[in-house]
Amino acid sequence: MNKNELIQNIRRKKSFLCVGLDTDLKKIPPHLLNDDDPIFAFNRAIIDATAEYAIAYKPNLAFYECAGARGWLAFEKTVRYLREHHPDTFLIADAKRGDIGNTSALYARTFFEETDVDALTVAPYMGEDSVTPFLGYDGKWVVLLALTSNKGSADFQLTASADGERLFERVLRQSQEWADDERMMYVVGATQGRMFEDIRRIVPRHFLLVPGVGAQGGSLDEVCRYGMNADCGLIVNSSRAILYADRTEAFATAAAREARAVQQQMAAYL
Amino acid sequence: MNKNELIQNIRRKKSFLCVGLDTDLKKIPPHLLNDDDPIFAFNRAIIDATAEYAIAYKPNLAFYECAGARGWLAFEKTVRYLREHHPDTFLIADAKRGDIGNTSALYARTFFEETDVDALTVAPYMGEDSVTPFLGYDGKWVVLLALTSNKGSADFQLTASADGERLFERVLRQSQEWADDERMMYVVGATQGRMFEDIRRIVPRHFLLVPGVGAQGGSLDEVCRYGMNADCGLIVNSSRAILYADRTEAFATAAAREARAVQQQMAAYL
Repeated sequence: MNKNELIQNIRRKKSFLCVGLDTDLKKIPPHLLNDDDPIFAFNRAIIDATAEYAIAYKPNLAFYECAGARGWLAFEKTVRYLREHHPDTFLIADAKRGDIGNTSALYARTFFEETDVDALTVAPYMGEDSVTPFLGYDGKWVVLLALTSNKGSADFQLTASADGERLFERVLRQSQEWADDERMMYVVGATQGRMFEDIRRIVPRHFLLVPGVGAQGGSLDEVCRYGMNADCGLIVNSSRAILYADRTEAFATAAAREARAVQQQMAAYL
Repeated sequence: MNKNELIQNIRRKKSFLCVGLDTDLKKIPPHLLNDDDPIFAFNRAIIDATAEYAIAYKPNLAFYECAGARGWLAFEKTVRYLREHHPDTFLIADAKRGDIGNTSALYARTFFEETDVDALTVAPYMGEDSVTPFLGYDGKWVVLLALTSNKGSADFQLTASADGERLFERVLRQSQEWADDERMMYVVGATQGRMFEDIRRIVPRHFLLVPGVGAQGGSLDEVCRYGMNADCGLIVNSSRAILYADRTEAFATAAAREARAVQQQMAAYL
């Protein structure tokens, strides 16, 4: 999906909500555990219930890998289901990959050819040649970690160099030499508040993928006030608050209600 | 495997060779492609041929993920095979994971419980709470990226802070507050030459996992001269030079010959 299509979807749905498919067998409604593929059964129900209110979905690979080969099948089935039934949604594999060039190229093949997602989260620590192999695909995106939502983001990401530039700022600045805002987005945690102002000074036009609203304590209002740009420029993720709103057979209805509530808040900012 | 057992294996085998199981269906001998599970068939033959000369094996997950669910099964079978038939080898999953706390905890469960490897490579960008979930397992190790072997390692890892400390040095120093040398190792690329001296000033006692000898151009002699400590302190990885020494039915014999040649070089440094 290209940037213009993404912006059109946001305008049409009046939403910049991404539903994080962090599907945990310990948290899904117990009656689904009898299904042949409980992870996929849960995902399908969540997707169908929330697609009206969401413009993106983000499976985090950790939740699939921990179920081994069965988990990978469930991930692949989820991607195919979204592609077939909800082709207007932006699909992000949250895998935080990154390796030497020939190995990153393999990860790129996995996520952009074998399983046809729109975007992959990538860790910047190994530098340019660990990221560029993901950039050779038309309509595919790298979502590079910049300033994450967790407490540990302060350990290295905020370290200032001799000239006062913090590491996340260096990542934002330098990575723009590798790809523009049609091919690259950045992860910025919702918990970072006014830091969005600093980020927008460096990447005014890029989309930001923003996790950390809800369970992790980030504020949608702050994110919008300091992070939004003329194209919206935000994809705000919510996982647990929507997925696990209810553990009975009414879980999908509850998820829809939660997603709709977030969408309505979002509409007010658009 | 604990540190003392690892050191004993190095002394007994007179080797600190790790064979990187970067198994690529495009590069393995064509006759294996008729096997039910060509990845595992190749790995098993390579392992049996080289186990006399190697103290560690390191499957890089990118090579398994790109075959989807079948790839994961091949990875799991490889781990089980090593555990059963070569229990004296140290088993590193090269996955370069790292995420917010609860997600890193899932990755830890995947690699240390579901598939019983000894160590996992982890990326440091997200800081302490992205790494510590991997540290709660007895006899299991985090191998943290410090100074990698690729060109892009210069982009961020060498950035000096206001007080002159480079990012990789900060990672080495700060991560010692999270775990000691019985639980943590570091990735340092063989291509870094005399930088090993700087690294040994900060982590004199830790094991270093050293990729980049061979195809990537690193020198075993430099690595040993500047990186070795009293316990050896090195696990040097070689992948392509051993795995793809020959593409005929004699591939395993050729791999053994290559591994033996490296082991004999290593013995001279021990």
